[in-house]
Amino acid sequence: MKEAEVIDRLRRIATHPGARDLRDDAAVLDGLVITHDSVAEGVHFFSTDPPASVGWKLVAVNLSDLAAKGAKPVAALLSFSLSDMDWDFGVIDGIEAACESYGVSLIGGDTIALLPDAPRVYGLTAIGRAAAKVPSRSGGSAGDGLWVAGSLGDSAAGLAQLIEDAAASGPMVDIYRRPIPLLEMGRALAGHATAMMDISDGLLVDLARLCSASGCAAEIDLDSLPLSSAFVAERGQDRTARLFAATGGDDYALLAAFPAEFDPVSLSLPRAPTLACIGRLVAGSGLMLHDRDGGVPLPERLGYEHRASSASVDDRL
Amino acid sequence: MKEAEVIDRLRRIATHPGARDLRDDAAVLDGLVITHDSVAEGVHFFSTDPPASVGWKLVAVNLSDLAAKGAKPVAALLSFSLSDMDWDFGVIDGIEAACESYGVSLIGGDTIALLPDAPRVYGLTAIGRAAAKVPSRSGGSAGDGLWVAGSLGDSAAGLAQLIEDAAASGPMVDIYRRPIPLLEMGRALAGHATAMMDISDGLLVDLARLCSASGCAAEIDLDSLPLSSAFVAERGQDRTARLFAATGGDDYALLAAFPAEFDPVSLSLPRAPTLACIGRLVAGSGLMLHDRDGGVPLPERLGYEHRASSASVDDRL
Repeated sequence: MKEAEVIDRLRRIATHPGARDLRDDAAVLDGLVITHDSVAEGVHFFSTDPPASVGWKLVAVNLSDLAAKGAKPVAALLSFSLSDMDWDFGVIDGIEAACESYGVSLIGGDTIALLPDAPRVYGLTAIGRAAAKVPSRSGGSAGDGLWVAGSLGDSAAGLAQLIEDAAASGPMVDIYRRPIPLLEMGRALAGHATAMMDISDGLLVDLARLCSASGCAAEIDLDSLPLSSAFVAERGQDRTARLFAATGGDDYALLAAFPAEFDPVSLSLPRAPTLACIGRLVAGSGLMLHDRDGGVPLPERLGYEHRASSASVDDRL
Repeated sequence: MKEAEVIDRLRRIATHPGARDLRDDAAVLDGLVITHDSVAEGVHFFSTDPPASVGWKLVAVNLSDLAAKGAKPVAALLSFSLSDMDWDFGVIDGIEAACESYGVSLIGGDTIALLPDAPRVYGLTAIGRAAAKVPSRSGGSAGDGLWVAGSLGDSAAGLAQLIEDAAASGPMVDIYRRPIPLLEMGRALAGHATAMMDISDGLLVDLARLCSASGCAAEIDLDSLPLSSAFVAERGQDRTARLFAATGGDDYALLAAFPAEFDPVSLSLPRAPTLACIGRLVAGSGLMLHDRDGGVPLPERLGYEHRASSASVDDRL
């Protein structure tokens, strides 16, 4: 796994404690929470996607990392590859819409002109103000309850529709293209969570990362996964559908661990999204799945961990 | 000039005062100075460049922006496109060498795998701690003396050698590939400069930006430009050579304005580089050049302002 070797090598340069050893969603520096994610044409988005949704998603996926740390977005730096004017302005429309929606000011960055025919690439550094506590991935303990805020599988279902038909549309395509960072929810949960991260590559692979960082295993009840009505209408809610939702990725839901005795539903929470208890952390290592019919074998593919596409520097088991 | 239109459009999102209206080398937020620059294969570096020099330069050009604001480097986030292992590790060797040389910790970022044959792209967000004063480009006034720290033209001469012969070597090729950010000098000057920026695209185009931001014109004595012995040995120091040095770019020297009565040489300065007075700001707009033989017409090309390659979001007249 070449990416892992590169990240291992990079870890030697990650000497600052705020780097969190490159194992978290974001870094912490001087009361700021800072993250960077890039997207490339043909890898993270389609050339046929509406450019405004490319810009929106670039901002939203970075803000989702801030949400997972309970931070309040403040500013962003943008790396923007110049292309044709209509496309460029479309992308910026989407960036602006997301920045305005979430109170983010663009404070810098650069524009680059790539070689003709080179795929477009965009990068964003998002900066948020840290709350009193910035939960990491590593603070979970055996016995903690595992909760998911948001629903799973919609985005992957939308992507599947687009792969079949580039002109597909509907609520799941919308969620794939225009994810909503759960900023309010993240802020409400951050002070109480023992560990928290966003689900970007799939529940199971991201949960495996949280477990690895926390030195625990996890037991998950597939029947408790939060599914949207649109998802159930399209794919049902049997074991196959639930495994699809648990491994699909691009959810930008939040995964949080809380002490066993703590009920996060007792917190003052935003009205949406739903918050569902999906299982618990236990001693050991690895993931154990079950549903009403008993144990469920772990699927071979837990999410996008091995894809040749995007992986945060921190996205390492 | 399409890039300018894109930046104008982006400026609408740059609502935070620390964005400095996207007209400066870096942003200022919560006592931190933050900048981002990307480099792309075939545009900012050659496929035949040693990968370690690509990594070094990625860090150095960002730290040069921090130097121009008098900031002390602290941390960086890296966007890294995965390629073959030897190349990747070579680039990281260079990134590590620069980070260790200047006290920078890697705190985050991401790795992306691009499509096969897509040019490699790297981005870096560099973060420094601000000193008491963070000079902008816009604080200069008519009467201020204009000073350059560092020498001009070496890097452009090295690039010209490489374009002629990809196997060229020597001191100017070294400077092109491994620029030195003038961090100590920047910190020494920042508290006293009325305006300061780094010279990345060429003295004349960058000076025109400083003049535009400060609402002034400038008079420059070409004979006073600081040239290295290696440059003079290769290209001489006649008007042609000096105009080459004034427009070459990739210098990563510092350009600073000081009140007329102030002599920055009186400051406690690092032993290197040299600090040369090259002219002064005057009322009006535009640039006026002269040398011992009288007035010198402004060259058509002031630097890399129109190149289809790199331009910081802030690099706009």
